Amino acid sequence: MAGLLDPLFRSGPMCAVFADRARLQGMLDFEAALARAAARAGAIPQRAGPAIAASCRAELFDPVALARGTVLAGNPAAPMVQALTALVAKKNASAARYVHWGATSQDAIDTGAVLQLRAALDLIEADARRLAAALARSARKYRRTPMAGRTLLQQAVPITFGLKAAGALNALERSRARLRELRPRVLVIQFGGAAGTLASLGPRGLAVGQALAARLGLRQPAMPWHAHRDRVAEAATVLGLLTGTLGKIAKDIALLMQTEIGEAREPAAQGKGRSSAMPHKRNPVDAAIVLAAATKVPALVSVMLSAMTQEQERGLGNWQAEWETLPEICLLCGGALEHLAQALEGLEVDAQRMRANLDLTRGLILAEAVSSALAPELGRDTAHALVEQACRRALSEERPLRDVLAEEPKIERLLAPEQLDRLLDPVNYLGAAEKFVARVLAARAGRKK
Amino acid sequence: MAGLLDPLFRSGPMCAVFADRARLQGMLDFEAALARAAARAGAIPQRAGPAIAASCRAELFDPVALARGTVLAGNPAAPMVQALTALVAKKNASAARYVHWGATSQDAIDTGAVLQLRAALDLIEADARRLAAALARSARKYRRTPMAGRTLLQQAVPITFGLKAAGALNALERSRARLRELRPRVLVIQFGGAAGTLASLGPRGLAVGQALAARLGLRQPAMPWHAHRDRVAEAATVLGLLTGTLGKIAKDIALLMQTEIGEAREPAAQGKGRSSAMPHKRNPVDAAIVLAAATKVPALVSVMLSAMTQEQERGLGNWQAEWETLPEICLLCGGALEHLAQALEGLEVDAQRMRANLDLTRGLILAEAVSSALAPELGRDTAHALVEQACRRALSEERPLRDVLAEEPKIERLLAPEQLDRLLDPVNYLGAAEKFVARVLAARAGRKK
Amino acid sequence: MAGLLDPLFRSGPMCAVFADRARLQGMLDFEAALARAAARAGAIPQRAGPAIAASCRAELFDPVALARGTVLAGNPAAPMVQALTALVAKKNASAARYVHWGATSQDAIDTGAVLQLRAALDLIEADARRLAAALARSARKYRRTPMAGRTLLQQAVPITFGLKAAGALNALERSRARLRELRPRVLVIQFGGAAGTLASLGPRGLAVGQALAARLGLRQPAMPWHAHRDRVAEAATVLGLLTGTLGKIAKDIALLMQTEIGEAREPAAQGKGRSSAMPHKRNPVDAAIVLAAATKVPALVSVMLSAMTQEQERGLGNWQAEWETLPEICLLCGGALEHLAQALEGLEVDAQRMRANLDLTRGLILAEAVSSALAPELGRDTAHALVEQACRRALSEERPLRDVLAEEPKIERLLAPEQLDRLLDPVNYLGAAEKFVARVLAARAGRKK
Amino acid sequence: MAGLLDPLFRSGPMCAVFADRARLQGMLDFEAALARAAARAGAIPQRAGPAIAASCRAELFDPVALARGTVLAGNPAAPMVQALTALVAKKNASAARYVHWGATSQDAIDTGAVLQLRAALDLIEADARRLAAALARSARKYRRTPMAGRTLLQQAVPITFGLKAAGALNALERSRARLRELRPRVLVIQFGGAAGTLASLGPRGLAVGQALAARLGLRQPAMPWHAHRDRVAEAATVLGLLTGTLGKIAKDIALLMQTEIGEAREPAAQGKGRSSAMPHKRNPVDAAIVLAAATKVPALVSVMLSAMTQEQERGLGNWQAEWETLPEICLLCGGALEHLAQALEGLEVDAQRMRANLDLTRGLILAEAVSSALAPELGRDTAHALVEQACRRALSEERPLRDVLAEEPKIERLLAPEQLDRLLDPVNYLGAAEKFVARVLAARAGRKK
Repeated sequence: MAGLLDPLFRSGPMCAVFADRARLQGMLDFEAALARAAARAGAIPQRAGPAIAASCRAELFDPVALARGTVLAGNPAAPMVQALTALVAKKNASAARYVHWGATSQDAIDTGAVLQLRAALDLIEADARRLAAALARSARKYRRTPMAGRTLLQQAVPITFGLKAAGALNALERSRARLRELRPRVLVIQFGGAAGTLASLGPRGLAVGQALAARLGLRQPAMPWHAHRDRVAEAATVLGLLTGTLGKIAKDIALLMQTEIGEAREPAAQGKGRSSAMPHKRNPVDAAIVLAAATKVPALVSVMLSAMTQEQERGLGNWQAEWETLPEICLLCGGALEHLAQALEGLEVDAQRMRANLDLTRGLILAEAVSSALAPELGRDTAHALVEQACRRALSEERPLRDVLAEEPKIERLLAPEQLDRLLDPVNYLGAAEKFVARVLAARAGRKK
Repeated sequence: MAGLLDPLFRSGPMCAVFADRARLQGMLDFEAALARAAARAGAIPQRAGPAIAASCRAELFDPVALARGTVLAGNPAAPMVQALTALVAKKNASAARYVHWGATSQDAIDTGAVLQLRAALDLIEADARRLAAALARSARKYRRTPMAGRTLLQQAVPITFGLKAAGALNALERSRARLRELRPRVLVIQFGGAAGTLASLGPRGLAVGQALAARLGLRQPAMPWHAHRDRVAEAATVLGLLTGTLGKIAKDIALLMQTEIGEAREPAAQGKGRSSAMPHKRNPVDAAIVLAAATKVPALVSVMLSAMTQEQERGLGNWQAEWETLPEICLLCGGALEHLAQALEGLEVDAQRMRANLDLTRGLILAEAVSSALAPELGRDTAHALVEQACRRALSEERPLRDVLAEEPKIERLLAPEQLDRLLDPVNYLGAAEKFVARVLAARAGRKK
Repeated sequence: MAGLLDPLFRSGPMCAVFADRARLQGMLDFEAALARAAARAGAIPQRAGPAIAASCRAELFDPVALARGTVLAGNPAAPMVQALTALVAKKNASAARYVHWGATSQDAIDTGAVLQLRAALDLIEADARRLAAALARSARKYRRTPMAGRTLLQQAVPITFGLKAAGALNALERSRARLRELRPRVLVIQFGGAAGTLASLGPRGLAVGQALAARLGLRQPAMPWHAHRDRVAEAATVLGLLTGTLGKIAKDIALLMQTEIGEAREPAAQGKGRSSAMPHKRNPVDAAIVLAAATKVPALVSVMLSAMTQEQERGLGNWQAEWETLPEICLLCGGALEHLAQALEGLEVDAQRMRANLDLTRGLILAEAVSSALAPELGRDTAHALVEQACRRALSEERPLRDVLAEEPKIERLLAPEQLDRLLDPVNYLGAAEKFVARVLAARAGRKK
Repeated sequence: MAGLLDPLFRSGPMCAVFADRARLQGMLDFEAALARAAARAGAIPQRAGPAIAASCRAELFDPVALARGTVLAGNPAAPMVQALTALVAKKNASAARYVHWGATSQDAIDTGAVLQLRAALDLIEADARRLAAALARSARKYRRTPMAGRTLLQQAVPITFGLKAAGALNALERSRARLRELRPRVLVIQFGGAAGTLASLGPRGLAVGQALAARLGLRQPAMPWHAHRDRVAEAATVLGLLTGTLGKIAKDIALLMQTEIGEAREPAAQGKGRSSAMPHKRNPVDAAIVLAAATKVPALVSVMLSAMTQEQERGLGNWQAEWETLPEICLLCGGALEHLAQALEGLEVDAQRMRANLDLTRGLILAEAVSSALAPELGRDTAHALVEQACRRALSEERPLRDVLAEEPKIERLLAPEQLDRLLDPVNYLGAAEKFVARVLAARAGRKK
């Protein structure tokens, strides 16, 4: 896990969850729980359970031999079962007969993957909580800090930085709700035997399954889901939605960090974002990593969806396509989340620069405020046209909009100079921004209770 | 909607939901509800509300002029607002001043799209219910009909056709649950004005929003979501998961329809699936359509996810990328669902052929039954090896597995001929199949209550 | 073609190429050419050729009936053949016997699609030439116009606008080269009969194919390619690469159009980019359209690639997935190209603003120039560290870099004030920019000869 | 490289090409060549060249420290340059001043990646040649071996296994041609300095670039291509097309391996494709691996295309998204190629079973032969209808088509019994199959000369 780019794109704990050894241990946890469950249900001798379980420790296995066996079998479970059987046999030949009892390779692989996924979801929830807290703090702190709202990359009307943070928080909370709803559907065992009937367990199949699920802390589904992959594909989509939201937040940060805008910056760290060629630069490193994830994950989600059309009782190629794809989605999403939480926790916000940028258009950004004020008298369209004309003049003559408007007789008649001043002050044109922030924070508080 | 391929890939009602006129009407429904809501909240004169609403009928608009205006404005709402204003002005010049009051183009476009989506979800739910009913009937009817379970396209052990149908039903019910959970998150208004503050409505913004939502039967979100697209992207993912499940079912049908397998067939219809070159063929038309959707939709979902990283307060290109993508996902998913419901309702199941195919391997398909029976005595591994050897001999000598097994002394000692016969009868090796079917049907019944 | 959003995302001529009628005519062109070719090769009676060809006109067909027949047959060729046969029979019963002689539905569908693709490639080449000419003009005109080079959205070192244009031109020329290389591989007939053997034509198959290809102006491939889809998938990838390049150029324009940067603007047009809420805005409409295409096309390309794993001699669902996907790629790429060519032909470049933005960092953007000048004496690392320190001081004290540098004894010793002034003038730090522009223009000229 | 799943999905040599150390060495090769080139061009002192180059060996670097530095810098080149400078300084302080002279991080990263890609393309070409040879042998050997052609998974008309192999070979040769055409566009240096002007090299930029390219055996492009990514994206698409073709071939093999078809099998190997539950099974392992790649690679290609819209002079997130994606495409494509070459080299073809399956429909598969023979007399449509009717009767009465046809007076009149027999023998209905095989082999031979 000491890869050159891993620490950049992925988090350490998540890498541990999806390391090869953890993948192996996931399958072994299945085998151990199965042995104990089968023993308890009377499907295998009582003492075979603990005897088998005792050998289900990843560190006892030779990874190179397993990898070689995987190539032959076409999956990593078959050589694991063989090796486990040999291990158990060394200590207890009769127990070795009952290794993997009633199960098929897919049962071990899928249940192991679900166990890894559970650990991954826990990590993601923890970092999402951290990010949500940082966003909530920003929403509250900057709820009255005006800045330019920008649509299609152009200044539109003023907003507040708190509103921007609240929008991000609100979206993040929706992702957290999806993650909660996902759990009962995906945190289930896979247990069906060769083709999903548990036939080799005779009448004890369901009882073994129930005990197996209980032992692993997973739910027992109505029936095996070998070739119906919506459960794991859903996990991919929910993480895809979360990654998309992270990408949106990161893009905003990167755009605000532009030299010409400079309204926010990722927190500084010794040497962070250093350019090898330009001594004065500080690059948006966290945002870049998050955006890289947001560029890659949607396609990986499409792989999981494409892979759903699995043949009959077990897929051919499409199931195998999942093995590294769902982990990679977790890794990239988790890495992006860690980077973004870090960036948001230390985000440097430049309220002065925000205010200065609001003045950049010499009042044009408040054109709507003026046309809205005129509309009840003149009608929305006429008011719009009149102000648009003034804007064009202000632009071409490089003068403040206020001065141009003041010269327009139709406007002079309707708006006194003080009114015009008030209309052209951004803090007077923030509408429901603060209320929206309060609603988002209240909704969040409600959910936390 | 008379496109050459539309009727093949899409359903008529869904095409109506996403026709250009319906898109326009969706935006007009927003404008009508906004006018009434603003009037009610006192944001515009009382009588302007109905005056504006009266003109909000798509048939009053010139589609060619709107299309031309759309190119200039870069979105379809701006020319719609202009045309609506002109229409209202013809009858009531003063009301015309209040058209689109407080809103921005995106408010009309997004809310209109949500209204279309609601209609689409209703259609999908109706067809999903139909498909679920057909699958439930099959699950019940064929719960004891044995057939070959196939993994990696090879015969594995027997299952029942009922179990296969139950697996599909169970997956479909999960998609229906997701569709229910999705609704409160996506069936919401979009209403924020120029940059999400509702500033031009002054203190009345939230009240207008509340009335607007009530009028449209949508929820009012905590705040506008202009550039946070997880709501609509989630709709795409949920439909993507459903399409994947449909594709899986269709692929099974197509595989069962193979000349060499022939266990099921799409219902016949006069001229259906006719080949222009081969008079004897009947092609799996419905399955092909569903699989085409399952090939396309995952990528369209990735577009919706990729498009989530929208810039600041309104996206540049990525928002526009959604406009035709989400409708297309609905259309393809809906078309696939209609085709598949039809196919399943009339599916021809050939239980005789299923039975015959079970005998194709001269007993090999029940090898696991024998090795399972031997395992308690011989150990799983030894039993497996012994039976594998017998299988290889049966294969090379083209003899029934039963005969080869009967010659093997170690087996003869443990299994009497009648036992061997019973072990090699597929109906005795169906494990929990029937119980699984019952569990799926019970879970479904529980949900229906 | 009168769709609400079509004129926004697609070009008129390209819509005509892919209209339903053109799709039908493509198949009919195949049938006409086949009839004449078969007659010429003696496979059918001499007079049947022109008799059949005479009815191969799309306007003679009932589109509604064809659409209905398409649903039954699962493809549009079968009902077309039926209808054509009936049409021919009205005038010449004996000729009607020879309609579609030796062919299968896929032959008509694929060859028709290739004919449409050829028309699409012609349109794309024409607009690509237009765009290339506009970029070449910009490259030449602005080859000495300095502006800030920006990496990771931050000012880095100066470049010229001509260099930026040349980079775009160079990439576009590579796409044009790919389009040329693609033609011989994709502009081929599809002709194999039921399963690719042309068996029903007996010994005349190849001769008919040769005459057919000659008539359509297509090449005859070594053998039919029914289920090998790399030819059409390659067309998708080449257009995908082109669309990516268009998206890159559009994103640069949109970024340069930002209120805070303002260095370039899409050409103005009456009402273009008008905001319904903000009178002063002019949105980057063309760039948004191009970026929407660049968001969608990559996923559509992945559909074409995913669809390549077609079953045996004809695909099941994956072939059908191509039918609307390749046209959509052409439409979106073509639309983006038209918008971008238009934008580039009238692009408003603000050289003054470019110069002003170069001064925004008070000299920081030329930090590298200084450290490069110091490096031979001090070593790259020491020079870098020294200048970085000065940059930080200039930033925190809000002073020009020049003044801070001048105070640094180590620097003062090595650089005279005039040297410092020269180093800090952007026009003196443009390196090979002009030479690069010349190389790109020369390469282009070389290719045009 | 000792990963659990790596040996399954990837080949050993390709893993070596893309190992972290190789990535580092790629960048170091750039630095070494740059130092020598700069020295030669007089940009840095003569002796600095070899002094720097001597330290450019990956084994001298601490991977953990590099990984840590990568997180801070946001890219792996910056810490590499720092570490290299320190290494050089230990031996030659003055040479250390000239490390990375004139270059930017992206120059090292991109050029290093191109060097890795060149090695990858060499490996792929070698395995593609191997696969092509195997396919050519099959095409020749089985050019007269009849089997059922299958369209939409149903038997259509006879083909030969040689024709199937020739189709695959022909597609593969097209991919090889694309790989050749790709090389001059992608095997180029990246060298532009901070923003693509080589400004810090003053007038020597181009000369250094030329020497650098010569040293690395790469071409010097007209200008740097920092943010124009079509070169590397094209590599992705070309490998995507190849992977699609591999997937198509693998799917055919898997379908032919079905228990009920059994016409071909992957070569046996001790323990290969062993099922943990079913002793009699031999799973299509190679095909599954290839199909897994064909499921994943299209989405990865879409990442490369999506990532093309890079901002200004260096991308933000999208460039970073390429770093692991292009290698992964090479790895998966290379792994699939190796598996498929192996499978094809040892493919077990069961010509007897092919013949037996042709008889499965009791003659229906030759229905077209009969209707083609009747068409000149009766007309295509009447003949088709007549034979279709006979087919239906043969099906429902479970009788040979021959017997039913013989009873039909209209047919009896036109076709003598011997004629009927000849028509219904598959070997007489293979059309141009053998000629097509010859054309494909000839085209290949022509190219090899």
